[in-house]
Amino acid sequence: MDVAVHGVGTSHFGRQPDRDLVALAWDAVREAFADAAVSAVDAVWVGTVFGPPGVAQRVLRAMGITGIPVVTVENACASGTTAFAEAHEAVRTGRYGRVLALGLEQLSTAFDGAIHPEPTDPEGRAGLALPALYAMAAARYLHLGTATPEQLAAVSVKNHAHALHNDRAQYSGRYTVEEVLASRMIADPLTLLQCCPTSDGAAAAVLGPAARDARHVTVRGVAMRSGQPWDHRSPHVWGHDIVRDTAADALAAAGLAAATDVDVAEVHDAFTIGEIVTTEALGLVPAGEGGKAATEGVTALGGAHPVNPSGGLLSRGHPLGATGLAQLAEIVWQLRGEAGARQVDRARLGLVETMGGGVSGLDGNACVITVLEAP
Amino acid sequence: MDVAVHGVGTSHFGRQPDRDLVALAWDAVREAFADAAVSAVDAVWVGTVFGPPGVAQRVLRAMGITGIPVVTVENACASGTTAFAEAHEAVRTGRYGRVLALGLEQLSTAFDGAIHPEPTDPEGRAGLALPALYAMAAARYLHLGTATPEQLAAVSVKNHAHALHNDRAQYSGRYTVEEVLASRMIADPLTLLQCCPTSDGAAAAVLGPAARDARHVTVRGVAMRSGQPWDHRSPHVWGHDIVRDTAADALAAAGLAAATDVDVAEVHDAFTIGEIVTTEALGLVPAGEGGKAATEGVTALGGAHPVNPSGGLLSRGHPLGATGLAQLAEIVWQLRGEAGARQVDRARLGLVETMGGGVSGLDGNACVITVLEAP
Repeated sequence: MDVAVHGVGTSHFGRQPDRDLVALAWDAVREAFADAAVSAVDAVWVGTVFGPPGVAQRVLRAMGITGIPVVTVENACASGTTAFAEAHEAVRTGRYGRVLALGLEQLSTAFDGAIHPEPTDPEGRAGLALPALYAMAAARYLHLGTATPEQLAAVSVKNHAHALHNDRAQYSGRYTVEEVLASRMIADPLTLLQCCPTSDGAAAAVLGPAARDARHVTVRGVAMRSGQPWDHRSPHVWGHDIVRDTAADALAAAGLAAATDVDVAEVHDAFTIGEIVTTEALGLVPAGEGGKAATEGVTALGGAHPVNPSGGLLSRGHPLGATGLAQLAEIVWQLRGEAGARQVDRARLGLVETMGGGVSGLDGNACVITVLEAP
Repeated sequence: MDVAVHGVGTSHFGRQPDRDLVALAWDAVREAFADAAVSAVDAVWVGTVFGPPGVAQRVLRAMGITGIPVVTVENACASGTTAFAEAHEAVRTGRYGRVLALGLEQLSTAFDGAIHPEPTDPEGRAGLALPALYAMAAARYLHLGTATPEQLAAVSVKNHAHALHNDRAQYSGRYTVEEVLASRMIADPLTLLQCCPTSDGAAAAVLGPAARDARHVTVRGVAMRSGQPWDHRSPHVWGHDIVRDTAADALAAAGLAAATDVDVAEVHDAFTIGEIVTTEALGLVPAGEGGKAATEGVTALGGAHPVNPSGGLLSRGHPLGATGLAQLAEIVWQLRGEAGARQVDRARLGLVETMGGGVSGLDGNACVITVLEAP
């Protein structure tokens, strides 16, 4: 059965320690239900990374969503899009009619600064928190001359500017490359404005069978990979190959020849280098030109391949379990022509890429890529 | 597509703080792979409650199981059987050919005593850890005269005796009713020997298409419910109604008229009262006769409806995420006639029931019931 996104919703994103997961989820689910014009669903998949056991049932119970199958999934930063992939599969196979995918996370009350690595990981033992892991990729790009510090910074400038048009974003601003490079160093060469912030938020999507409906965004293809070992002989940096391989799966499922066929993409820019590596791995830009694309406006609103019109993780924020569904909501709004001042002209095909993790020598714990089509 | 369990495996169960989740999972997966005569699978679902984010990828990576889709699920004590239900669905719909369901938990290094309730739950705020929640059900049974203290204790006597024949069980012993009642009080009226212990362990199953194979145990039906509110007007105690309703779904899926059609069952006896309530809710014994059934040997090995031949959670142990798949492994061994001294004669149909949680006024966070058929 063909599957469509019937509605989406999100909370505001930001540090919201005075709100709880119920309040955040309420905002996202209420909006998604209204958007889909439904008042109930047949099953729920919830994505969260640090939500405590039972958090899904607790949140749904508080919203009066009870008595239906609920499955909580964890797949690192791709937990939200893993929930989406599982919900999609349930509709595709006719297991359930209408399904809610919900992502939620409250990091502001859980962590002070970077998320701690697990001490049992090789990376954790080496003190490699995620900023440091991404910094190694950035350092390699700089060392090989594949990118310059200014190109890294240009990603931050672009995404913060995009977020000026997104009133749910955690941060936004008209920064210069110099300002980005002059911000506090977090993990050399990544400065503060090149790192995603600590965020709280929720995002939701209602999925159901595709029908002729002016508001149904069709799911053309979903692919997930996980637990892929990092091939240290690869010429590419960490995180490249799993995105490349998952993209190949998703594009094949969608019947597309190349990622350049899509009109707009939301990708996992937890750090500036992440967007550069990902745009190359997806094939949105040629190998080695991710940085140049940011500097030259190729990936900006108005460019040939707009990336992260929402502001991305860098600016909208990165509440882990919610992120994938926040990306998805943005693409749905884009494909329905409802993105306001950040609308990509005539967007017919959109792509969502989420990549999570970085433990135990893995090339990403999981990567989920979805291709969506306008009504 | 009809689905069969091709192989199962478990670790030893018990306090094993000197082993880690990799070592425990290794034992379970190695045995399940050998049992199924496979060396690889196409996807993995992992169930864990307190495993840290990324634990599934970390464990699988250490075992060399990489590059395939991995989804970690949490559904309280039913996490292992939720992983099984999702793996079953993936095979049933042809999404993947051969799938591993893996449950794992290490509680000995995480908790000292009872698992703490979430302080944001109504139950948590009231100090109702799970022993106290079950104790309220037991107190009600005693108050109404539906069961006696001796009948509660008889469940513990029976299951500890069953475990004498299970060398992977955490505890076993020939106790008397008096000894059970005289053990240390944990939550009145539940004494120490009526409460499941703190356990570490892993259990696994390999699922695939059903074929004519002398070792394939066919899955006749799987049902899952979750997040069902506790109807305080119900004449039944907490946890009864969700089991009753899920059993109705599972029996219908399996084409059975009643649970009494099955020859052997593993049910969620986290506390003695749990087995009594569950056998009644399933319809294995008439309403109000769960206690009597234990005393009179109806649910013992050799009785009309043998329950928990493995020793159950009370004796085999209860490593949360692993429990459901440990129950499943026991039923698979029973249906293949490989259960040794605890074998149920001519067991052709078996049932696995797992019920998890107890938060936010819910009648169990989740219940998963599976009906299996001998080769």
